[in-house]
Amino acid sequence: MPDTAHSFTIDVTTGPLEGSRRSYVAGERLGDVRVPFRDVDLHPSANEPPVRLYDTSGPYTDPAAAIDIDAGLPRIREAWITGRGDTELYDGRSVKPEDNGFAKGDKLVPEFPTRNRPRRAAGGGAVTQLAYARAGIVTPEMEFIAIRENLGRAKLKQESAKAAGALDGEGFGAEIPDWVTPEFVRDEVAKGRAIIPANINHPETEPMIIGRNFLVKINANIGNSAVTSSVAEEVDKMVWAIRWGADTVMDLSTGRNIHNIRDWIIRNAPVPIGTVPIYQALEKVGGIAEELTFEVFRDTLIEQAEQGVDYFTIHAGVRLPYVPLTAERVTGIVSRGGSIMAKWCLAHHKESFLYEHFEEICDICRAYDVSFSLGDGLRPGSIADANDAAQFAELETLGELTQIAWERDCQVMIEGPGHVPMHKIKVNMEKQLAECGEAPFYTLGPLTTDIAPGYDHITSGIGAAMIGWFGTAMLCYVTPKEHLGLPDRDDVKTGVITYKIAAHAADLAKGHPAAKIRDDALSRARFEFRWEDQFNLSLDPTTARDFHDQTLPKEAHKVAHFCSMCGPKFCSMKISQDIRDAARAQNDAGESVDVEKAMAEKAAEFKEKGGEIYVREGRE
Amino acid sequence: MPDTAHSFTIDVTTGPLEGSRRSYVAGERLGDVRVPFRDVDLHPSANEPPVRLYDTSGPYTDPAAAIDIDAGLPRIREAWITGRGDTELYDGRSVKPEDNGFAKGDKLVPEFPTRNRPRRAAGGGAVTQLAYARAGIVTPEMEFIAIRENLGRAKLKQESAKAAGALDGEGFGAEIPDWVTPEFVRDEVAKGRAIIPANINHPETEPMIIGRNFLVKINANIGNSAVTSSVAEEVDKMVWAIRWGADTVMDLSTGRNIHNIRDWIIRNAPVPIGTVPIYQALEKVGGIAEELTFEVFRDTLIEQAEQGVDYFTIHAGVRLPYVPLTAERVTGIVSRGGSIMAKWCLAHHKESFLYEHFEEICDICRAYDVSFSLGDGLRPGSIADANDAAQFAELETLGELTQIAWERDCQVMIEGPGHVPMHKIKVNMEKQLAECGEAPFYTLGPLTTDIAPGYDHITSGIGAAMIGWFGTAMLCYVTPKEHLGLPDRDDVKTGVITYKIAAHAADLAKGHPAAKIRDDALSRARFEFRWEDQFNLSLDPTTARDFHDQTLPKEAHKVAHFCSMCGPKFCSMKISQDIRDAARAQNDAGESVDVEKAMAEKAAEFKEKGGEIYVREGRE
Repeated sequence: MPDTAHSFTIDVTTGPLEGSRRSYVAGERLGDVRVPFRDVDLHPSANEPPVRLYDTSGPYTDPAAAIDIDAGLPRIREAWITGRGDTELYDGRSVKPEDNGFAKGDKLVPEFPTRNRPRRAAGGGAVTQLAYARAGIVTPEMEFIAIRENLGRAKLKQESAKAAGALDGEGFGAEIPDWVTPEFVRDEVAKGRAIIPANINHPETEPMIIGRNFLVKINANIGNSAVTSSVAEEVDKMVWAIRWGADTVMDLSTGRNIHNIRDWIIRNAPVPIGTVPIYQALEKVGGIAEELTFEVFRDTLIEQAEQGVDYFTIHAGVRLPYVPLTAERVTGIVSRGGSIMAKWCLAHHKESFLYEHFEEICDICRAYDVSFSLGDGLRPGSIADANDAAQFAELETLGELTQIAWERDCQVMIEGPGHVPMHKIKVNMEKQLAECGEAPFYTLGPLTTDIAPGYDHITSGIGAAMIGWFGTAMLCYVTPKEHLGLPDRDDVKTGVITYKIAAHAADLAKGHPAAKIRDDALSRARFEFRWEDQFNLSLDPTTARDFHDQTLPKEAHKVAHFCSMCGPKFCSMKISQDIRDAARAQNDAGESVDVEKAMAEKAAEFKEKGGEIYVREGRE
Repeated sequence: MPDTAHSFTIDVTTGPLEGSRRSYVAGERLGDVRVPFRDVDLHPSANEPPVRLYDTSGPYTDPAAAIDIDAGLPRIREAWITGRGDTELYDGRSVKPEDNGFAKGDKLVPEFPTRNRPRRAAGGGAVTQLAYARAGIVTPEMEFIAIRENLGRAKLKQESAKAAGALDGEGFGAEIPDWVTPEFVRDEVAKGRAIIPANINHPETEPMIIGRNFLVKINANIGNSAVTSSVAEEVDKMVWAIRWGADTVMDLSTGRNIHNIRDWIIRNAPVPIGTVPIYQALEKVGGIAEELTFEVFRDTLIEQAEQGVDYFTIHAGVRLPYVPLTAERVTGIVSRGGSIMAKWCLAHHKESFLYEHFEEICDICRAYDVSFSLGDGLRPGSIADANDAAQFAELETLGELTQIAWERDCQVMIEGPGHVPMHKIKVNMEKQLAECGEAPFYTLGPLTTDIAPGYDHITSGIGAAMIGWFGTAMLCYVTPKEHLGLPDRDDVKTGVITYKIAAHAADLAKGHPAAKIRDDALSRARFEFRWEDQFNLSLDPTTARDFHDQTLPKEAHKVAHFCSMCGPKFCSMKISQDIRDAARAQNDAGESVDVEKAMAEKAAEFKEKGGEIYVREGRE
């Protein structure tokens, strides 16, 4: 146990979700690959195998795992990274006072107890998953991802799902395979159509992939603010966000203690962590955009790369000539990073130092395998500004930068809007694919109307589901507090669940072969009155159960063999079962069945078991 | 004041929404037409006129109106109805014990204090808005609607909005006019493309229209259950639902007291009320579907038509041969009305009495102007069952019934699903338009995935926004309690707000000329730090303000001239304003502007006013 020379306690939520059980699937080829899943066992009457679900929650939901926040998570990828023999340990950059905003004394968040020496590419090489993929190497990360993306399906089962018609869908040019192989993962990464954010200094990550031929992913934002949150709250929010399904987490901390808080987060994160380095760079120059320099920025990139940040949002597409294109917008520039760079460009009358030094930035990223998330600093902040000249000019530049990064074996995804009415969403996707060579798209919503502050998880969930269907690979969540305040724990959960809905709806519509399994299992549970199975298969078992219990609190109601939506008098699902039974009997006997008699029997059965409770599905 | 011989008290929420003020716009042609709106006055610094909003809340939000639940609302349409000279008063049907489920003594909800003699068409004529429209008559209802749909815009303003590009959109064949005239309303009704649900025995209604060339409408369901709610709760829920924007309300009460509760609701409802008469008919035969007869059903229709129900959901498309098509579904029949009729058909081995007697049903509807909402009794209850043979077979029959109703001058809309993945939504709309002669479509969501019980307002809000964009005229809300329990007051509000988002997002995407005005006004308020305006223009000012105050409780923060999303250090919107100012100065002077100087001045201004608070928009 490390020396915990700090006075605070970090409590995180551990233990499995209600009705779930951790399982692991071992890899076949590459040693110690062990992919975590969440299994939901069904009621024996279902006569179905457990439903296996994708699980982002890491060791926190595994009762067998010992969680020690002061020690951090197991470094599961370390042997894979060292085994490649292309990296070196070195002393790394010393932590400087400005890294933590000159915080001192009891204002300074303590350093994470353990400091690992950082690792970087030896001899100026590229240690990115893209470099390996291009070299034809299937990494353990790729095998891990292949197993994960198949959701633990056996290959045979998947084929029968296909036969049952589960695979229809409209992919808009996406090429989703029936079965994800490690080789398919490699090929998609090699083509630049998918990325594996996996800094060699973040070996705690369970590998995941972002690309439109895979399951749609979601990101949750956390981050401290001087006013309201502490390191304990941020680590807790990270663990909370992945519990409900966040695939990656961005740490958007500002103010003091940025460096130390990030360390606590990364060492305890089983998911990739993204940042916006310009935030910290700005803090280092006292918050004055004009005083930013490439040297300060470069130093910040190395600092964060050594800590293990998996992807950097870099607003290198905010070029000087584009800034005036925003002058007549209704809401100007709403990206914080974008506005910083716009201010710098205007103040100096110079081209952006991020754009000018982009090759050097690539050299850093390739040495640690930090993926690019090329920021959309000029994204629209209102329906009025959607799809305007500034937005699309920047997108074209992001395409140009993508080629530069790819030349240096760097992994790239592209950020997208923002605020876009429904009829203008699809062209965003089409233009992004065309301009950026099919690099994965990563959008914020988009919000489909501006009139609902307090409900922007919903205004944006609509747009997110649609653009996910059209091909966006990762959806950045929006919480109910958007535009109004800082999200708390409840907001984080609501944002994550809303975006899991959007991502899953997109997977269904694209015809992802694994997506419909869960819907069908839940629908069968619903039809067969297996209430516990219905709760346990849902995105949020706790809330589903609570809502049910508000009307029907008794345990007996959870096994009652009639549907509380209609009650025994005229339960629609019960009648449907009668119809099915009748039809099947007819088929079996090859003759007409006495439906009335069967119905009368069922009616008698209702009366024996029934109550008087009515709940309905929808309007009638 | 009527004799209130009842022991209960009905409390409803009255008074204007925060920051709103009631206004009325008078008609020009037809006498006493007086259309209510909700005006939001903006901060003087905006230098903008008040934003006028569509208002469904009736007299309850008008401080000048005297609300007396025991007396009911003013009968504003009475003079219009009598003025047409084609109706007669008559004694009407007596209330029978079975109308209230044989409730007696203190179990019997008292009758509404006032009983008006019912009115019906004289001499077997049709008194429907469709009949008038076909005869070329522009009714006061139509003029009222034209003013209402224009959202109080002056015609000139609307033209400038068009010039400003507010009218782009993709209508999928919808023909939304720049300016709604009474004649356009008449023409759309005459073509059957829109309906005005307005029973002549519900003269309290403020007329509204349902059609795809008008604003998208939403419906909220209420209804008592034996277990949890009373007449007071249901009237309160109705008033609460329209306060937040429900355009129509369906009373889905079951159990006892159906008749009397409905009376209390209708007499106090300024919006059209819909019902599913088979529910009450079933109660009259002791809950046994097999014992239903057309006579009982017919008696129920007349009972409800005399009370003033504005539209009936009738599942006449559930035909005997379609029932076996549901046998192999994952979730069978999920419509309560549909399952009742399916059970009846199977039990008797007979064609549905609703289908067989549809002409007689039309004769009742035309005598009172009750609109049809042809029910989708075979709608899918899961993603697995979407767009199947049973669903589409019924839809074709609904098209056939539409023609029969139209021949008798009855108004018709068509109900639609349900549970549909995104890629299967559009064909629902296309098929409905083709099969049903462009009669308005009225859908329940659809839910785009089955895996989120507890969040089905969101799973369905996604589908609702999309199908609204494609042309659905009214969206039936889904609350968070769907599939789990009975919605309470909070659920009703969440359902309504979510569906207002969906409907408005659809209006924007269709390019409705009035829709974007509100988004733009709110976005300008956001950009200019007019917090109060931003709250007041939102769908839910209370929640927006509460969320804001959780982070920034001080009154001073609501007028602070920097954006709390970024704070004074690098407020993106402030920088944008600087950019705009610089660009404009450049244009005015015809020369290069000293941007640094302007920025330095603004920076000094920041420092004077600033704090240290950070809130961000989205991820960076």
